[in-house]
Amino acid sequence: MIKLVLIRHGQSVWNLENRFTGWTDVDLSNNGLEEAKQAGIVLKKHGYVFDAAHTSVLKRAIQTMWIVLREMDLLWIPDYKSWMLNERHYGALQGLNKAETAEKYGEEQVHLWRRSVDIRPPALERTDERYEASAPRYRSLREEEFPLTENLEDTERRVLKYWQKAIAPALSSGQHLLISAHGNTLRALVKYLDRIPADGIADLNIPTGIPLVYELDERLSPIRHYYLGIDGEIPEEKIPSHI
Amino acid sequence: MIKLVLIRHGQSVWNLENRFTGWTDVDLSNNGLEEAKQAGIVLKKHGYVFDAAHTSVLKRAIQTMWIVLREMDLLWIPDYKSWMLNERHYGALQGLNKAETAEKYGEEQVHLWRRSVDIRPPALERTDERYEASAPRYRSLREEEFPLTENLEDTERRVLKYWQKAIAPALSSGQHLLISAHGNTLRALVKYLDRIPADGIADLNIPTGIPLVYELDERLSPIRHYYLGIDGEIPEEKIPSHI
Repeated sequence: MIKLVLIRHGQSVWNLENRFTGWTDVDLSNNGLEEAKQAGIVLKKHGYVFDAAHTSVLKRAIQTMWIVLREMDLLWIPDYKSWMLNERHYGALQGLNKAETAEKYGEEQVHLWRRSVDIRPPALERTDERYEASAPRYRSLREEEFPLTENLEDTERRVLKYWQKAIAPALSSGQHLLISAHGNTLRALVKYLDRIPADGIADLNIPTGIPLVYELDERLSPIRHYYLGIDGEIPEEKIPSHI
Repeated sequence: MIKLVLIRHGQSVWNLENRFTGWTDVDLSNNGLEEAKQAGIVLKKHGYVFDAAHTSVLKRAIQTMWIVLREMDLLWIPDYKSWMLNERHYGALQGLNKAETAEKYGEEQVHLWRRSVDIRPPALERTDERYEASAPRYRSLREEEFPLTENLEDTERRVLKYWQKAIAPALSSGQHLLISAHGNTLRALVKYLDRIPADGIADLNIPTGIPLVYELDERLSPIRHYYLGIDGEIPEEKIPSHI
């Protein structure tokens, strides 16, 4: 039986300020740092060991991975960072306050942007200072690959590309992996693993900082999954189901 | 012109306790954490940017790398961890107090173990609990590769193997690299780069936590090197020359 552990990074400074983040590279808040530490303590307590860790190129996910591995005394394992595990690109909404955006465009429009699978937020212009295609961390992307905005399906497409290229082969070879990533990246992955239809994903939320364990069979189909707390599996009803 | 930056990890808890460390995986002291942070601040202030970082599988060097990259806002770059950059294996001396060892074996013998290039400390027995060949982080080593003790030439041999395999090709392709490693690993590398003869290496010491910059030509021969402090190059006479 193959175990895969997913973790959504802890609270960031922009979660705290209630701003759309997307690919903006913001730090974890002190609370987020503490959430990561607790996740590491939980995983260590329950005897988890990883062979490698995968994360995005955004520091809130990288820091979460690092802190988890430090608590588990696993800093020595290989770690891989890819833009394909980045949060969903939030287009021209990146940096805006969520409440103000709701006042301006209406609650319903914002809910659609946040929760539908096929509606994209307004796109960034290439002249916008938030357009980072020339940043060194994105030099492996061709200009036409760099997103100007994404819906969940766009995010899912690149996450699954990474799954096929890097995660699935490692899992199949028997490696135990940690993936430290973002709310929408992990929603996309869970949607794929659990074959959740497009109209069933709106209310699925991955809570921050709680290890989500997937037990997979040798064809990488999920046998079961559960959240892990300090006392073991966390009962489903104690998991927040909405952001 | 190619720039390579070497950094010796900051003070560890065993440096503080004056014990032989070698491959023992001890933490940085608070002072060591602070040294790493200062090194990152210095490198950032002087405009350094790295494409990748290389370190050992020992957490004092990994943590130093991590803290430097965090301060430089470069957590997203690829990092590589290899046992070939580990500190010299100190054999059966690992864990012993240096002063007590000197009392028992004599100052001169301990100086020879520490500073000569070809004398090895007493070897570990394979039954010793400090023999870690079966530890997961060393599973890529064949049993006969796992050192029971090393002299500086043994360390140099594996460091140069890593240089040829991983460092030199990356430098030649134009990458700017950080290597976060250990006193003897870096002495071995400097001995090779600067063609220091075996009888000239005894008094060479790399201070902890101070970036050592090598400027290399396209054949990777050193043009010059210098230590970097907050105000720029540190004059040679201000560098401690003995441990």
